[in-house]
Amino acid sequence: MTTLPPDHNAPDASTPVVGIIMGSQSDLRVMNVAAEVLRQFQVPFEITLVSPHRTPHRLVEYAESARKRGLRVVIAGGGGAAHLPGMVAAFTTLPVIGVPINAATSIAGLDSVLSMLQMPAGVPVATVALDNAANAAILAVQMLAIGNARLADALEKYRAALRDKVMRTVDELRKGGLDDF
Amino acid sequence: MTTLPPDHNAPDASTPVVGIIMGSQSDLRVMNVAAEVLRQFQVPFEITLVSPHRTPHRLVEYAESARKRGLRVVIAGGGGAAHLPGMVAAFTTLPVIGVPINAATSIAGLDSVLSMLQMPAGVPVATVALDNAANAAILAVQMLAIGNARLADALEKYRAALRDKVMRTVDELRKGGLDDF
Amino acid sequence: MTTLPPDHNAPDASTPVVGIIMGSQSDLRVMNVAAEVLRQFQVPFEITLVSPHRTPHRLVEYAESARKRGLRVVIAGGGGAAHLPGMVAAFTTLPVIGVPINAATSIAGLDSVLSMLQMPAGVPVATVALDNAANAAILAVQMLAIGNARLADALEKYRAALRDKVMRTVDELRKGGLDDF
Amino acid sequence: MTTLPPDHNAPDASTPVVGIIMGSQSDLRVMNVAAEVLRQFQVPFEITLVSPHRTPHRLVEYAESARKRGLRVVIAGGGGAAHLPGMVAAFTTLPVIGVPINAATSIAGLDSVLSMLQMPAGVPVATVALDNAANAAILAVQMLAIGNARLADALEKYRAALRDKVMRTVDELRKGGLDDF
Amino acid sequence: MTTLPPDHNAPDASTPVVGIIMGSQSDLRVMNVAAEVLRQFQVPFEITLVSPHRTPHRLVEYAESARKRGLRVVIAGGGGAAHLPGMVAAFTTLPVIGVPINAATSIAGLDSVLSMLQMPAGVPVATVALDNAANAAILAVQMLAIGNARLADALEKYRAALRDKVMRTVDELRKGGLDDF
Amino acid sequence: MTTLPPDHNAPDASTPVVGIIMGSQSDLRVMNVAAEVLRQFQVPFEITLVSPHRTPHRLVEYAESARKRGLRVVIAGGGGAAHLPGMVAAFTTLPVIGVPINAATSIAGLDSVLSMLQMPAGVPVATVALDNAANAAILAVQMLAIGNARLADALEKYRAALRDKVMRTVDELRKGGLDDF
Amino acid sequence: MTTLPPDHNAPDASTPVVGIIMGSQSDLRVMNVAAEVLRQFQVPFEITLVSPHRTPHRLVEYAESARKRGLRVVIAGGGGAAHLPGMVAAFTTLPVIGVPINAATSIAGLDSVLSMLQMPAGVPVATVALDNAANAAILAVQMLAIGNARLADALEKYRAALRDKVMRTVDELRKGGLDDF
Amino acid sequence: MTTLPPDHNAPDASTPVVGIIMGSQSDLRVMNVAAEVLRQFQVPFEITLVSPHRTPHRLVEYAESARKRGLRVVIAGGGGAAHLPGMVAAFTTLPVIGVPINAATSIAGLDSVLSMLQMPAGVPVATVALDNAANAAILAVQMLAIGNARLADALEKYRAALRDKVMRTVDELRKGGLDDF
Repeated sequence: MTTLPPDHNAPDASTPVVGIIMGSQSDLRVMNVAAEVLRQFQVPFEITLVSPHRTPHRLVEYAESARKRGLRVVIAGGGGAAHLPGMVAAFTTLPVIGVPINAATSIAGLDSVLSMLQMPAGVPVATVALDNAANAAILAVQMLAIGNARLADALEKYRAALRDKVMRTVDELRKGGLDDF
Repeated sequence: MTTLPPDHNAPDASTPVVGIIMGSQSDLRVMNVAAEVLRQFQVPFEITLVSPHRTPHRLVEYAESARKRGLRVVIAGGGGAAHLPGMVAAFTTLPVIGVPINAATSIAGLDSVLSMLQMPAGVPVATVALDNAANAAILAVQMLAIGNARLADALEKYRAALRDKVMRTVDELRKGGLDDF
Repeated sequence: MTTLPPDHNAPDASTPVVGIIMGSQSDLRVMNVAAEVLRQFQVPFEITLVSPHRTPHRLVEYAESARKRGLRVVIAGGGGAAHLPGMVAAFTTLPVIGVPINAATSIAGLDSVLSMLQMPAGVPVATVALDNAANAAILAVQMLAIGNARLADALEKYRAALRDKVMRTVDELRKGGLDDF
Repeated sequence: MTTLPPDHNAPDASTPVVGIIMGSQSDLRVMNVAAEVLRQFQVPFEITLVSPHRTPHRLVEYAESARKRGLRVVIAGGGGAAHLPGMVAAFTTLPVIGVPINAATSIAGLDSVLSMLQMPAGVPVATVALDNAANAAILAVQMLAIGNARLADALEKYRAALRDKVMRTVDELRKGGLDDF
Repeated sequence: MTTLPPDHNAPDASTPVVGIIMGSQSDLRVMNVAAEVLRQFQVPFEITLVSPHRTPHRLVEYAESARKRGLRVVIAGGGGAAHLPGMVAAFTTLPVIGVPINAATSIAGLDSVLSMLQMPAGVPVATVALDNAANAAILAVQMLAIGNARLADALEKYRAALRDKVMRTVDELRKGGLDDF
Repeated sequence: MTTLPPDHNAPDASTPVVGIIMGSQSDLRVMNVAAEVLRQFQVPFEITLVSPHRTPHRLVEYAESARKRGLRVVIAGGGGAAHLPGMVAAFTTLPVIGVPINAATSIAGLDSVLSMLQMPAGVPVATVALDNAANAAILAVQMLAIGNARLADALEKYRAALRDKVMRTVDELRKGGLDDF
Repeated sequence: MTTLPPDHNAPDASTPVVGIIMGSQSDLRVMNVAAEVLRQFQVPFEITLVSPHRTPHRLVEYAESARKRGLRVVIAGGGGAAHLPGMVAAFTTLPVIGVPINAATSIAGLDSVLSMLQMPAGVPVATVALDNAANAAILAVQMLAIGNARLADALEKYRAALRDKVMRTVDELRKGGLDDF
Repeated sequence: MTTLPPDHNAPDASTPVVGIIMGSQSDLRVMNVAAEVLRQFQVPFEITLVSPHRTPHRLVEYAESARKRGLRVVIAGGGGAAHLPGMVAAFTTLPVIGVPINAATSIAGLDSVLSMLQMPAGVPVATVALDNAANAAILAVQMLAIGNARLADALEKYRAALRDKVMRTVDELRKGGLDDF
């Protein structure tokens, strides 16, 4: 449904260039936000479950085929001992973005954060904030925008929109009696 | 060199029944202790490097062949985002024991502990104390001893030896002027 | 009610081979899941309360008689200063699996995790994830399966079922509009 | 060698009234300070090893005989999964003081602190600061001083000495050029 | 209303021997449990607010007069930067028991725990578990029981009651289909 | 609406001397309390949004113009990677007070606390307790009171009122049956 | 030796306006840096020991007399259960700056940080980074500079010097082969 | 010295495409590793100091000019309240990679990790492991390789080299008596 402009190197304009994966269905609540953001940027993506511990061969297959199938970035979310992004990163040299998810039995959110962040030298995971799938998508767009002028422009507009939204709130607060500088 | 008594179900008496693996050469300092303990219990083992992030196919191959090759338990050590035991557990149904290792850039030791401990339902890792490869080996022997009378006896003797060592220290302290009850 | 196949070394087919114990009635909510899993694997078990601090003699008696009574593995759950698995391990050489429980007045779940995990050399506790009694049961089955072909097979089937469940969700998501690779 | 004044309820003046115990010889470095403080207060004490995991029957015997043998307070030190004070408290109704010890493989010192502190309702451990065996001894003296005028006086003098030591440093700093109020 | 048996050294049988204090009215929910336990043991007590930061002179006065007024133990609860027990301990040589309270804006409960626990050498606070005022009261009774046979007996009965309560639950579980050893 | 007495050095009596800023509208719930306290002390203030990441130029402009516009203190609140107070402090030499806010996806509140507290030498942020905007306002008043006798008096009255409120509760508790010393 | 310019409200030009206090002699190593910075800004100060737990009356006296003696800001450092700044703040309405100190037996530095930071509403402590006494001094100067033009100018110069020092390093790195923008 | 192949979109082959920046000279020890890795991949880079708190205007200028000057990725390292990557990300839409650095007065390394990681929605920082500047460089190369076949190939070779290095160690261990599978 979304299309990538012609200056992108994807096999064709509708091939997904970002893969969004997560370990369990309960992670969808968090990871769907990444999909929404990519749709907003008209970046073709795919989204599915890949459980590192329950479907490990699917993980290998997914990660090894990712580049060939046209993916340029993988976004992987998970909670607890969150091995998905790190293991995908082990099977592909595409950039992998990790979204630590604060599961019900998490230990202060530190388990998923540290399981993604503390990768050994040579195999990085680009970790974003806890439950912050929006930022994973923005980061993916930033990576794609390195070689894509439309996305670079779109990022500037997105950033301007963020700024404008804050400024509108500033105005509303001022009218509502909040002082402003 | 070591042999397992005839009542064990291993293919033959010298086939390794415990596999000790670790992610990097620097982990040997910690993991060698597991080897020493297994030698002491005359449990045949193998020990090698399997890096989950630098040799992921080796991990798959190791874990998938483990049961067929006669292994009964896997002990896996690692630091930081310690994915080795959890990913081995994903590719085999053998019991996997995790030894979290306190690496130089660890975050209070919590990264490796939580990366091993917080596995999702269905795929456990039996996690032992930080840097405590001795306990991983003892736990492996305890598992093997479920169906092995010699090992069950050996564990009782080992435990008695631990107790005797404490009591010898108690005696020395008493002679040295420390009171005792 | 459940029975263990003849190739198991239990005194007889209906004698419990796994003991599930916990420190307080409020832990039942978590620990019952271990019982359900063992029932599913047709592994005879017993389940009861053993409070390390309020019934310490019961703890000693339980742990010391465990092997003689036919138990092969003990699963012990507790919250806060969770001494139950460690102290059971001190009185028996059977493998002891610890389930840290996140009680109401817990300190980020770290109190029960660290009280179980950080055992001294010689007396391990196989610690699983916070509140994850299912994994304690699976780990117990994995240990029993070392010498039990039926359980080894059952574990493979259980794992396949986990995988199939993920794949069914993958299919449903695909039909519901989620892309898939 | 030390003696307790006649108004104390101990069987006789030289019977130990405080028991100092610890899990391992390496804890002596920390726990000896408690002995020094008790000597200074002329409180008869005993000091020995009682390993909760390697000599658990000794723990039961120690704790159960403590009151009968004349002990009035138990000070118990340990590192890691520090079960000694909590389990002694389970076998006696004497007040038990816990000294968490920062072992080499500790997790930020939190393991021993939380293993002692987070006891369930009904069985308290009076936990003092990490490695602070001096405070365990002072606390023991404070408990004994409830019914002992000599010790109550001695505590006042000890406190005055602490104050005087600070004031002497204040004076030295003042002479050395540090301003004072 | 409660009375202390004649063998206690309190000025007279109805003079409070335990002072329960807390920093704010919202702590009453937690600290009232200490009062209930002391009532159960017939230990005369007083309970009131003493805010270390909002009524610091009251703190000084309370702590300095405590021994003279007949108090034998002080129990002090607080949340956040919980200075009450430590500062009371600075102004009296009576034993001071600290109850860390988990306030709404607490940092994983660690702020009040560490603010009480980590006292410098010479001025201990006997810290109990988070929100566990019951244990503070039991610890106070244990201290008073050093010189009071009635309380020593009462503690044994209390402990037996705890044990019996667990055993009744064990029986109920057994009847309800839970297996027991 | 509020006015600063003539002895203050502000350009004129109604010019804001305290700037209250925060990163997002959701922080208003916490930061409004600072405004209420400043109103109570009749300290002229302004309050608005300044997002360090979405309106970074506004941050620069706000911080650089702060002193010239008559501000004497800046109070800045934020959650997560809370860069607002630290970056304002980088662009002005006015004292900056930081209010760490416990956001929904916070990691035990530690992220905002440490992001504000751990500033490098030369550029301090005066950090107050988690979510405690009241204390940020009191601290601002304390700073202004250094050169303002009215505010110094007002602080004494405020402190007395805090004390009186505790004492009224003490009285109510006493009447309600709670003992008092 | 240092003097405050005439526009400051201190009783006379050489009266200390900042009081630097700490709980123990071992804190001098850290707190001396605050003295050096104040000397550099020619702000008269006093520096001495005030132990909250060993000299609590000195603390009361110091805090209560602080304003009368001409102090305008108090800087208080401490480790562990660091009650000094909070208790000084309870006895004076002067602004109090807290320097958490990382003592040998600290728990990841969190004990002193949280003991200072988490003050209740009404009695703030302006907490700076762990061991960062320099920032406490800068913050004190920033507070004094609210009503002191010389100090406001000095802060601008200090900030410029910090910037110049970074830029000199930038230049050196550039000459040494490091690229620059 | 290094050159980027013609298919890259940089203004010309020797213009830096990666900017490595850090807050202080002491971070060079860690950040130099990123430079070494980029050199190995023949990716033109620049490296310099940009202190967010001491040279904030330089930060604004650096970040705002980054894209125009040909940079495609920024790598920013820092310790403590590590605001550099987050604030650079606020002033540019280029991808920003954060390297948390474990400074001497760090709080278990959590301060720099959380200050970088926990960015609000819309402005991500791609955070890598503590002190792991090598991974920041690899991640930068992975981003550049999205549109650069030479770098994609180079990454595969780099990964193969990592694998080969592990396998050579495996061989050496095998020859040295360590068993292998």
